[in-house]
Amino acid sequence: MRREWRLSEPGTRRPGGRTERTRVAVLMATLDELAERGYAGLTVEAVAARSGVHKTTVYRRWASAEGLVAAALAMGAESEWVPPDTGSLQGDLAGIGRELVRYFTEPALSALPMASISAAFLSERAADSLRAYYEDRHARCAVVVERAVARGEVPAGTDAVEVVRAATAPVFYRLFVSREEVDDSVADSAARMAVIAAKAGAFPGRMPRR
Amino acid sequence: MRREWRLSEPGTRRPGGRTERTRVAVLMATLDELAERGYAGLTVEAVAARSGVHKTTVYRRWASAEGLVAAALAMGAESEWVPPDTGSLQGDLAGIGRELVRYFTEPALSALPMASISAAFLSERAADSLRAYYEDRHARCAVVVERAVARGEVPAGTDAVEVVRAATAPVFYRLFVSREEVDDSVADSAARMAVIAAKAGAFPGRMPRR
Repeated sequence: MRREWRLSEPGTRRPGGRTERTRVAVLMATLDELAERGYAGLTVEAVAARSGVHKTTVYRRWASAEGLVAAALAMGAESEWVPPDTGSLQGDLAGIGRELVRYFTEPALSALPMASISAAFLSERAADSLRAYYEDRHARCAVVVERAVARGEVPAGTDAVEVVRAATAPVFYRLFVSREEVDDSVADSAARMAVIAAKAGAFPGRMPRR
Repeated sequence: MRREWRLSEPGTRRPGGRTERTRVAVLMATLDELAERGYAGLTVEAVAARSGVHKTTVYRRWASAEGLVAAALAMGAESEWVPPDTGSLQGDLAGIGRELVRYFTEPALSALPMASISAAFLSERAADSLRAYYEDRHARCAVVVERAVARGEVPAGTDAVEVVRAATAPVFYRLFVSREEVDDSVADSAARMAVIAAKAGAFPGRMPRR
């Protein structure tokens, strides 16, 4: 994910300003610590030392390891990510699912995604950050269903976010609940199941008000 | 969950023996501490004090808060739980899903289930315990699909565990990933989606070898 991040939020902070430089240094140090030690080993002290920012500053602004994870995740959400556009709903959903499998299972990529899910159990701030992140992802992914409706693949009025949830939830279920192995075939099966269900009208949207 | 637990494992331990009494006292204290303080506040020291078992003994046998959660979850798996038998696949799956919603959202019930998912991020022992628990749940739930096959509701050869995963994963997804509200309607929708997909042949089992 890191490679996709913008290091500033245009219009909200003065790029290159001291506050912004501190933020980037701390959040990059958070990512590096997560990658080396994992979430269980993440401490404010180590992030402060690594970033060269005084630990009082880190505590004041981010409060805890969970606060750092929440902020690092929010930085990830600044990316320009769009879902794949393969020409079919099956291809697009399988692509989204395969990307999830990759981010949550490759050691070089999985530290922040795993820490984000884990921290949300321990901190309301981290849970809020996770909720905002997936709300943004849902909004970005809806287009794959809208294109499928336009192509006539699935019925008009299909609830796009429900399709996205159904197509990806089995990947997360195996990762965090049943703790089973996941690979691309899990993503592909879940995508196929969601497409079959969508074609059969299993995801009716809310009726528009009259 | 607690009310369903048997307090001994017949045939594996001498019921009423000292080791067994210690085990039950420690795991009951774990549940009480979880209910009062949550997983973030669970410590070996507090469990030892509450159970009246020496903390050296608790450390030696369970090692950490995660070890205690793992053992408490394994105790839960000793129950006689069977899934509902409502006469339809939709009814059975919705019943399973509604029970999940209840256990994971009612404050009096949710401490151990939530701690079990959370601890698995921090401890291999807790992850193994969670994996074993859900493997057992999958095996117990498969009968609802087998009955549906027998009634002709879904095709012969339907992968029962895949149906169960699909019908429950959206509940867990909202709880732990997108951090959205869950209620019975989420369980009902996921069950309905899984039934529609199953009827349409979305869960083919592995071909039997010849």
